[in-house]
Amino acid sequence: MDFTLEYTDANSDARAGTITTDHGIITTPIFMPVGTVASVKAVHLHELKDDIKAQIILGNTYHLYLRPGLDILEKAGGLHKFNGWDRPILTDSGGFQVFSLSDNRKLTEEGAYFRSHIDGSKHLFTPENVVDTQRIIGSDIMMALDECTPGQADYQYAKKSLALTQRWLERGWKHFCETEGLYGYRQTFFPIVQGCVYPDLRRDAAMHVAQLGADGNAIGGLAVGEPTEKMYEMIEVVNEILPKDKPRYLMGVGTPANILEGIERGVDMFDCVMPTRNGRNGMLFTRNGIMNMRNKKWADDFSPIDEDGTSYVDRQYSKAYLRHLFISDEILAMQIASIHNLAFYVWLTQEARRQIISGTFKSWKKDMVQRVTHRL
Amino acid sequence: MDFTLEYTDANSDARAGTITTDHGIITTPIFMPVGTVASVKAVHLHELKDDIKAQIILGNTYHLYLRPGLDILEKAGGLHKFNGWDRPILTDSGGFQVFSLSDNRKLTEEGAYFRSHIDGSKHLFTPENVVDTQRIIGSDIMMALDECTPGQADYQYAKKSLALTQRWLERGWKHFCETEGLYGYRQTFFPIVQGCVYPDLRRDAAMHVAQLGADGNAIGGLAVGEPTEKMYEMIEVVNEILPKDKPRYLMGVGTPANILEGIERGVDMFDCVMPTRNGRNGMLFTRNGIMNMRNKKWADDFSPIDEDGTSYVDRQYSKAYLRHLFISDEILAMQIASIHNLAFYVWLTQEARRQIISGTFKSWKKDMVQRVTHRL
Ligand SMILES: [Zn+2]
Ligand SMILES: [Zn+2]
Repeated sequence: MDFTLEYTDANSDARAGTITTDHGIITTPIFMPVGTVASVKAVHLHELKDDIKAQIILGNTYHLYLRPGLDILEKAGGLHKFNGWDRPILTDSGGFQVFSLSDNRKLTEEGAYFRSHIDGSKHLFTPENVVDTQRIIGSDIMMALDECTPGQADYQYAKKSLALTQRWLERGWKHFCETEGLYGYRQTFFPIVQGCVYPDLRRDAAMHVAQLGADGNAIGGLAVGEPTEKMYEMIEVVNEILPKDKPRYLMGVGTPANILEGIERGVDMFDCVMPTRNGRNGMLFTRNGIMNMRNKKWADDFSPIDEDGTSYVDRQYSKAYLRHLFISDEILAMQIASIHNLAFYVWLTQEARRQIISGTFKSWKKDMVQRVTHRL
Repeated sequence: MDFTLEYTDANSDARAGTITTDHGIITTPIFMPVGTVASVKAVHLHELKDDIKAQIILGNTYHLYLRPGLDILEKAGGLHKFNGWDRPILTDSGGFQVFSLSDNRKLTEEGAYFRSHIDGSKHLFTPENVVDTQRIIGSDIMMALDECTPGQADYQYAKKSLALTQRWLERGWKHFCETEGLYGYRQTFFPIVQGCVYPDLRRDAAMHVAQLGADGNAIGGLAVGEPTEKMYEMIEVVNEILPKDKPRYLMGVGTPANILEGIERGVDMFDCVMPTRNGRNGMLFTRNGIMNMRNKKWADDFSPIDEDGTSYVDRQYSKAYLRHLFISDEILAMQIASIHNLAFYVWLTQEARRQIISGTFKSWKKDMVQRVTHRL
């Protein structure tokens, strides 16, 4: 994986760059749709490419490991072959889902023991075996196993947790360096900066991560219960230390405004389930504000979903029709909302890129934050 | 609405024709996807046109009347404007759903009283007001209100029920003739032949229907619990009497084999929820047989869903991937299965048409019935 930093904003830390992988290039800043269990929920493969214009998608190692399982994924020749997505794929390490989905899990020095949320079977994720798993999945970018420290953790807990994450990182990085991909193309490995809301821990974590010299670096443990201003502060602290010539990935964040603030602070890559999850519940994000499609006010509004939208669904279907589909619990409602929201998120990051390149990012961003937080 | 009978099979009663409506032409025999509540479940509008190649879809008056309601539909300018489908639409009268969905319904001479299955509100469908409702929906082909006699009804019940259906038909037809469409295009009205499994009742019903001189005629009350052979016998009895120069619509039927048998007996139009409903449960119909996609046998079968399929999903996705999506309860599974099954049903009727035209229907149909009933 290579990264070329093309433009740096004169008035902020915003950057525009290009990531090159063996599955194609990614122009940053970029939003990456989440394809949890080998499918971006309610979205067809060609819609992801042609309508949403996704350049890279995520896979969740925890979900893929349980279903379809490594045996099937390896027989298929990796996730790209299995689901047909031939552009880059990033996978998380599975640690986050072990803590959010499994009832029965235990952290040890060795790794994370857990029971499957599906059938209760017992499993262990270690810093080494999640590398092996991501080798089998065949992700272009794999992530280190870490403990995602809760946003309200006290300092002592956060410090101990970070120390474990750092020991795991050493082990994972070593194992990554000693092993090779299975399918003939390059894979890379991103370490993750933890440290909760404590600047000194974040600095320590960022320095530890930076000295590895990985192709890219991630910031984890944000948007997990801490105040939003703390999140922005931590991004600033960390990005002062992370190398400028490597892409920075802010994990699991967030609202359109969060993403714009992240870009302003020098983040290059984003993912979040919000556009799909909230979309399935009737929330649409647009450049003019947020719409709750279940609201009665749309019942007889026959205008297009979003005149300014970038996806065909925005003009194909009316607000009244989409509202009707949500009220009637029709699957098509979730399909339309997912395409719209993902296309909007990808557009937002790519428009930020254009604004950075043309030197107008700062004022555009200020206006856009107002717009995207407005309730329609 | 006009119908041109183009070909009649020399070896059976199968026919090929063309129906012309103000929203375009329909080449028969044709399968009509069911768009229950203004959406064909899990299918985008453009998929219905481009991938499934639907020529006409159904709407359910009962569902549309309750949601989005007549006020919204009239404000939209009818269902075509509301959901964007600009090809022909056929609507049922709503009677069938009153009996299958409402807990609390009562048949009187006046009409069918019922409570909404959604909010318990009280409503009345009469032979006249369902015409008015279908005028507001703006269907190209509307259906008469009838009582769909259960397949196991005894003779006395069936006879009384048919008599009510016939009195309602007179009233509905009169009201249709006295009223006009709201949106400037032509609407037509199909009467329905009932009579359960009793040949003399079916004959009486067919003669009563035939003398109206409607643009087309429907056969109802089949595939509702009677033996399959009885269904085929009733189609034969009725089609001997129904005019040859008008299209014949067999309501709510059925499996691919049922449809082929219906075509052989002179039926021109079909609808059924089976391709979408069974599809959502993992059952795929193909020209080589039926697949249960939840079956373990597909887990590592990476071949395309259906090499011979007519829709792009058949080659875009593998059996193993689709099986994984079903096992993981992913919405995309239902989307893929719905597109595949509907495309197959439409193909089956249009291929029957080609075989009728080329004089090879009889032998093709015999082979195809074997194929489509095979379990893969
Ligand atoms: Zn998120
Ligand atoms: Zn049916």
